[in-house]
Amino acid sequence: MNDIVTLADIYAAQARIQRWVHRTPVLTSALLNKALGCELHFKCENFQKVGAFKARGAINAVAQLTGVDTVATHSSGNHGAALAYAAQVFGLKAIVVMPDNAPAVKQAAVAAYGGQIVTCRPTLADREAALVQVVEDTGAHFVPPYDHNQIIAGQGTAMLELLMQVAQPLSAVLVPVGGGGLLAGTAVAAKGCRPELQVIGTEPAGADDATVGFNRGQRVTQATPNTVADGLRTLVGVRNFDLICANVDAMLTVTEPAIVEAMALLWTRLKIIVEPSSAVPVAAIMEHAEGFKGQRVGVILSGGNVDLAQLPF
Amino acid sequence: MNDIVTLADIYAAQARIQRWVHRTPVLTSALLNKALGCELHFKCENFQKVGAFKARGAINAVAQLTGVDTVATHSSGNHGAALAYAAQVFGLKAIVVMPDNAPAVKQAAVAAYGGQIVTCRPTLADREAALVQVVEDTGAHFVPPYDHNQIIAGQGTAMLELLMQVAQPLSAVLVPVGGGGLLAGTAVAAKGCRPELQVIGTEPAGADDATVGFNRGQRVTQATPNTVADGLRTLVGVRNFDLICANVDAMLTVTEPAIVEAMALLWTRLKIIVEPSSAVPVAAIMEHAEGFKGQRVGVILSGGNVDLAQLPF
Repeated sequence: MNDIVTLADIYAAQARIQRWVHRTPVLTSALLNKALGCELHFKCENFQKVGAFKARGAINAVAQLTGVDTVATHSSGNHGAALAYAAQVFGLKAIVVMPDNAPAVKQAAVAAYGGQIVTCRPTLADREAALVQVVEDTGAHFVPPYDHNQIIAGQGTAMLELLMQVAQPLSAVLVPVGGGGLLAGTAVAAKGCRPELQVIGTEPAGADDATVGFNRGQRVTQATPNTVADGLRTLVGVRNFDLICANVDAMLTVTEPAIVEAMALLWTRLKIIVEPSSAVPVAAIMEHAEGFKGQRVGVILSGGNVDLAQLPF
Repeated sequence: MNDIVTLADIYAAQARIQRWVHRTPVLTSALLNKALGCELHFKCENFQKVGAFKARGAINAVAQLTGVDTVATHSSGNHGAALAYAAQVFGLKAIVVMPDNAPAVKQAAVAAYGGQIVTCRPTLADREAALVQVVEDTGAHFVPPYDHNQIIAGQGTAMLELLMQVAQPLSAVLVPVGGGGLLAGTAVAAKGCRPELQVIGTEPAGADDATVGFNRGQRVTQATPNTVADGLRTLVGVRNFDLICANVDAMLTVTEPAIVEAMALLWTRLKIIVEPSSAVPVAAIMEHAEGFKGQRVGVILSGGNVDLAQLPF
């Protein structure tokens, strides 16, 4: 069957996208290792194009389109900017449906890459209806934010790089979960290359649908997420959930205070800007420390787009 | 005469300190270049040991001590942590006199490197008196924060690295000025290697003693600085002022709103944490844009130590 993302798809994505995305650095900090009791390797997707790993999947999907002159999506966050960037790279037009309460900084990012913004009321139903209308009116091709094989394969390329960038083998890799594009791609890449590497998804306790679904073996279809990690306030996708169940070893949830504490720790120790979602894996190491003691652990820092007027400190 | 810092001193400092300091990266951003109309190369001393260039001078000074078992200084900022770090490296004891209103985060940094803190009331007279007492009581060797040849030579090593790290020749380099250790060292290094390179000091208009002194040819000895750039609330030192007058091409001042805007720009575009002092050169490019149009410009980002509870956004 054609409908499964494989390691080969991720290698193909890597070859396809590498001209247009950064091979982001992997940072370490002796002070952070001491504070957290393990050896941490941070894959810095906050330094990626558009400030988030989302550029990988969007480029991978748009690069494979033929006979399309306009792409569209709905997004309150990084996928909108990523799609606008990908469209700009390939000379296409991008239309992004955004809720009218989306932060000015997110709208500015879409506009900066030449994307056209269509605003709607801030419910999922309104977003989907507005997108259908855009597709009808313009013939635009819809590129979904996570529940899509080419998007998942693109996001998996960060893990391929991390494996090459860390000289000694990792024991575990931790990734945040929103729609599950990053975790699904990471898990396929990691298990394909090194089956013994533990792949762990991390979620805020206030947005734990992927964890609940993983533990009971059935995807959660309704939730009212409540977390500071704005990138993770979404249900895990259908394809994403299946790949996660098949390839992920464990899911961990974390409290809100731990997310803010982990974010402050990353900011002050690494001197880099990461968004709250990126702090979730580090919060998981703080709150489940016994499981990581002395291990060599990879963490994918998913992005660095924050509104400086709305910091949780 | 022995009492002048030369390029040879800075090369010697580089060889002496390189085991204990980072060769910090030089970052660029296409979006920032577009926004500011020139090609910027940022030397990231915010990623330096102790989070600031101060580690360079402190290591250079402490490495040359003989027959000393304790060093001491007074500092409300990064020099205290840098001296504690340098003392730890060489197996010495460090005592740092700090005003009792110094931020908890600065005290924690000194303590983290094993430094002993002596608190005093927050006036310069009290700080100096407390330091004299410490030296009398303990026989500690005083290592001043900036008005000292070995400190100046150490700070100049960042510029030597920047010159090697940027492939094409820079037209200008911009540096913030507090006590003037970084600017004096940078100017000697830059003019020694490439006399045609413009060396420009930048100051908040609310702490412009070096600029006023530079323009009238006489050091200012009294001021009441008022600026968000906490690292620059100090008078330029005597040796520093002489070296600046002999080697610096121009001084520029900037407004407070420009400092905050430049800091936000660095945070959001480069995704790195810099302290307000580091934003001052970028503010100068914003407020004096015509002078830099299309040029290749180096900026030394002096440090990244901020109190997340006291951000200016």
